Amino acid sequence: MDAKTAKSEVTRAAIVGAGMDLAAAEGLEALTLQAVADRAGLSKSGVFSRIGSREALQKAVVEEFGRRFLADVFAPAMQQAKGLPRLDEIVRLWLARMSRPGAHNSCIYVPGAFELDDRDGELRELLLHEVTRWRAALRRTVLQAVEAGHLQADTDAEQLVGEIYALAIGLLHDTRFLRDPAAPARAAASWARLRRSYLA
Amino acid sequence: MDAKTAKSEVTRAAIVGAGMDLAAAEGLEALTLQAVADRAGLSKSGVFSRIGSREALQKAVVEEFGRRFLADVFAPAMQQAKGLPRLDEIVRLWLARMSRPGAHNSCIYVPGAFELDDRDGELRELLLHEVTRWRAALRRTVLQAVEAGHLQADTDAEQLVGEIYALAIGLLHDTRFLRDPAAPARAAASWARLRRSYLA
Repeated sequence: MDAKTAKSEVTRAAIVGAGMDLAAAEGLEALTLQAVADRAGLSKSGVFSRIGSREALQKAVVEEFGRRFLADVFAPAMQQAKGLPRLDEIVRLWLARMSRPGAHNSCIYVPGAFELDDRDGELRELLLHEVTRWRAALRRTVLQAVEAGHLQADTDAEQLVGEIYALAIGLLHDTRFLRDPAAPARAAASWARLRRSYLA
Repeated sequence: MDAKTAKSEVTRAAIVGAGMDLAAAEGLEALTLQAVADRAGLSKSGVFSRIGSREALQKAVVEEFGRRFLADVFAPAMQQAKGLPRLDEIVRLWLARMSRPGAHNSCIYVPGAFELDDRDGELRELLLHEVTRWRAALRRTVLQAVEAGHLQADTDAEQLVGEIYALAIGLLHDTRFLRDPAAPARAAASWARLRRSYLA
């Protein structure tokens, strides 16, 4: 990579980073070329030349969030043995991420879901695609725990995924909106209770 | 009530109704006198003369939502015996409300929470007050079920309230964003599992 390409990559990363901050603070629909240009200290045409359209910007932000989310929550858990140890680690990392104080970009999926639920269009489809992919990864992990004999053989994987997802959303709500310092402990206790009810 | 007062009451109700639709579709921060005037087919000054400031409008909408929510979910459950029967009925009615198709005003609390979580101010305080009051009512119902000997004596009421709340939020997410028709059945199964783990 030559110096010019490297500089251009850095600028692009700064634009996407500014977009992530903006999306976390104002919502995904607040992502416009102008708003991101203002935040990144660039001209609107400078943002356009590196990112393209507003839709491309929104796509870049959602995809970068997805990469960071998987890097934080999924990738490290691959170090654990297949089955319940891996599922436990995913849930632990996910809940930790949801309750990390001050992390404004801690979640785009959940606030985005409630922002876009009744707005059909590309942005909603994009977010839905990411969330669906994440739930599928979670479902595969649950099924591996069933196959390994760690969870009950008749476990409904979709059901358990929905329950874990609800638990994570509830934690985000209680941490960010209620600002309840007891929320992470409650979520951990809730996972312990849920997990116990599925143990083989 | 004379005819003029009655007409004025009807107009005020129409304004608040338009505000509820707007808040459900666009978020609580989209509630401005002008936007509500446009939706209700009135002038901005007409809205102002009946409601007052933008803050008063937001307050009226959040409070009216709270009244309807309690009328749908809490009041009918008072017909059930104190304790678990009443708690069961509240959860049943709440989940039914969360998954009612097409009900755009089905929830302001949850999308509002994720919209306002990092915005300090009167509107956030107002919503927080309503949500906190609802959680307190739920906690009292749980404690009555413990006192009646229906739930385990060492039940952590705050924990169970958080778990029920997470379940309801998860259902809203899966119904409105994923548009998954299986979501209500999953939420009902989730409550059955959770409830069982607390039974005396």
